[in-house]
Amino acid sequence: MGRLRVGIVGYGNLGRGVEMAIRQNPDVELVCILTRRQPASVSSAVEVAHVSDAAKYQGKVDVMILCGGSATDLPEQGPQFASLFNTVDSFDTHAKIPDYFAQVDAAAKQSGHASVISTGWDPGLFSLNRLLADSVLPEGKEYTFWGKGVSQGHSDAIRRVKGVKNGIQYTIPHESAVSKVRAGENPELSTRDKHLRECFIVAEEGADRAAIEREIKTMPNYFSDYETVVHFIDEQEMQRNHSAMPHGGLVFRSGKTGESSTQIIEFGLKLDSNPEFTASVLVAYARAIARYAAEGFKGAKTVFDIPFAYLSAKSGDQLRSEML
Amino acid sequence: MGRLRVGIVGYGNLGRGVEMAIRQNPDVELVCILTRRQPASVSSAVEVAHVSDAAKYQGKVDVMILCGGSATDLPEQGPQFASLFNTVDSFDTHAKIPDYFAQVDAAAKQSGHASVISTGWDPGLFSLNRLLADSVLPEGKEYTFWGKGVSQGHSDAIRRVKGVKNGIQYTIPHESAVSKVRAGENPELSTRDKHLRECFIVAEEGADRAAIEREIKTMPNYFSDYETVVHFIDEQEMQRNHSAMPHGGLVFRSGKTGESSTQIIEFGLKLDSNPEFTASVLVAYARAIARYAAEGFKGAKTVFDIPFAYLSAKSGDQLRSEML
Repeated sequence: MGRLRVGIVGYGNLGRGVEMAIRQNPDVELVCILTRRQPASVSSAVEVAHVSDAAKYQGKVDVMILCGGSATDLPEQGPQFASLFNTVDSFDTHAKIPDYFAQVDAAAKQSGHASVISTGWDPGLFSLNRLLADSVLPEGKEYTFWGKGVSQGHSDAIRRVKGVKNGIQYTIPHESAVSKVRAGENPELSTRDKHLRECFIVAEEGADRAAIEREIKTMPNYFSDYETVVHFIDEQEMQRNHSAMPHGGLVFRSGKTGESSTQIIEFGLKLDSNPEFTASVLVAYARAIARYAAEGFKGAKTVFDIPFAYLSAKSGDQLRSEML
Repeated sequence: MGRLRVGIVGYGNLGRGVEMAIRQNPDVELVCILTRRQPASVSSAVEVAHVSDAAKYQGKVDVMILCGGSATDLPEQGPQFASLFNTVDSFDTHAKIPDYFAQVDAAAKQSGHASVISTGWDPGLFSLNRLLADSVLPEGKEYTFWGKGVSQGHSDAIRRVKGVKNGIQYTIPHESAVSKVRAGENPELSTRDKHLRECFIVAEEGADRAAIEREIKTMPNYFSDYETVVHFIDEQEMQRNHSAMPHGGLVFRSGKTGESSTQIIEFGLKLDSNPEFTASVLVAYARAIARYAAEGFKGAKTVFDIPFAYLSAKSGDQLRSEML
């Protein structure tokens, strides 16, 4: 196999992350970037074209990496691109995955392409660990903690509070809850037991800070049932310390075997950049789906259907001698 | 598919663990136990036969789970059983895996069976996480910590010291080393930087405890280069607190993406019972290799070649809607 030729569809944070990830994978080559903006407005070392011109890259691109959002972009682009190319995406609306899978699968089967949906880390690597742990420890309890990371929905909510100029919200796992799970105590924990919410606020001049804090902490659904911490900072500090997109989390399975042995499987991510990490996962799965396409597979797969050997540029011999 | 019919070859701690794990998997049925002991000396609810009578179970067993040791049992039994049955094992001599794979692969291909070798957790789940993380973060550094768990070799070494009646040695990750890796510091760490050694000793009556402690702590290769802690206990405490077989460990990959984002992937196991956990992994891979056999695959695989969907009793639809 020569170098894997990929295209990027959608050039936001995720698309730029994919461009950077490709530089770390010498067996992968970026051929083009497709955007909904004016192509001339995007500066890149590779060809930039409008998404509506996608078809002209057939035969020039082995896999299209779809970097649009799950709310409106992917439900349309997923099936559409699967009828022209092999694709990989990080569709992450958990509840809609079965429908989305069916649509991409149908489009890919009809056009004779291969697609892998919902890669990334949740869904994606977290799902893989949930399935592995569930298969190995059928009697057990699963715990997922998210963060420390920015919740877009909660950040939007605090920015709507009167007197708030700018704001960001981090979801943070409660150390005490994590410790209980790690200790094998199998606690009953709701999402709110597992997480605390930390807000950084830039207040408008003269705003009533006590009122802002009260309104945030009592906001139904978003904050009222959580332990919430509010910090007031200035705009400079906001730009300096809160522009990154960190995220991560923990997936546990706490199981029992034999008479009463406690067995704990833990998987964790600590990410300085959520989009760059998701992009790195997309590139590894692009390699995998290209191999399935080369073998003649037609249709859609998920991360559950793909052995890890397909993700690596290394040969089976190499993997067995170096990594097993 | 009806229930998966399995046999156990070798009825030590691991074999008994498999028997217990099967009880947690309603789609799996234990058909027989093969042992090198007198079959009549083994009490079990299922048929017990001598290993030399294995052939009479052809057609009655879908997968033989090989529970012998890697030093002398499996090098012989792996290829031998692969010429009669589909097999799964936990062969764990890392350096000899390529040879062992080739032999089992040849035997299985010739007889038309399917085998998966070197499941368990290291090799096994740890290897899977090393490969996944290496594929996603090509620029990075991998760290494996083992423990807290019993090292058989080091326990044997301390039991050979003059004046030692009984002894056990635990390998324990250094918290400070783990913290540095978790913090993304990418330290240079040798095996000895990563682990400390804790010994529990029952001394013979009148033995010189100071001399025992000195001899252990200065023992070349085994202890002299490590931080070693020695405790003297009595035989009752040894039986009460040190009869279990706990183990575990941590696999990290600390990588960089983009300009300089640190991305950390962590996988950890905390096991009350090492053999029961390994047994649980064997049973999940027995399910997987039976599916490959049913699809017509002939030869050997490793954990790298098997997608996680094959490990689960759940359907693809179920997995996509419940676990992705």
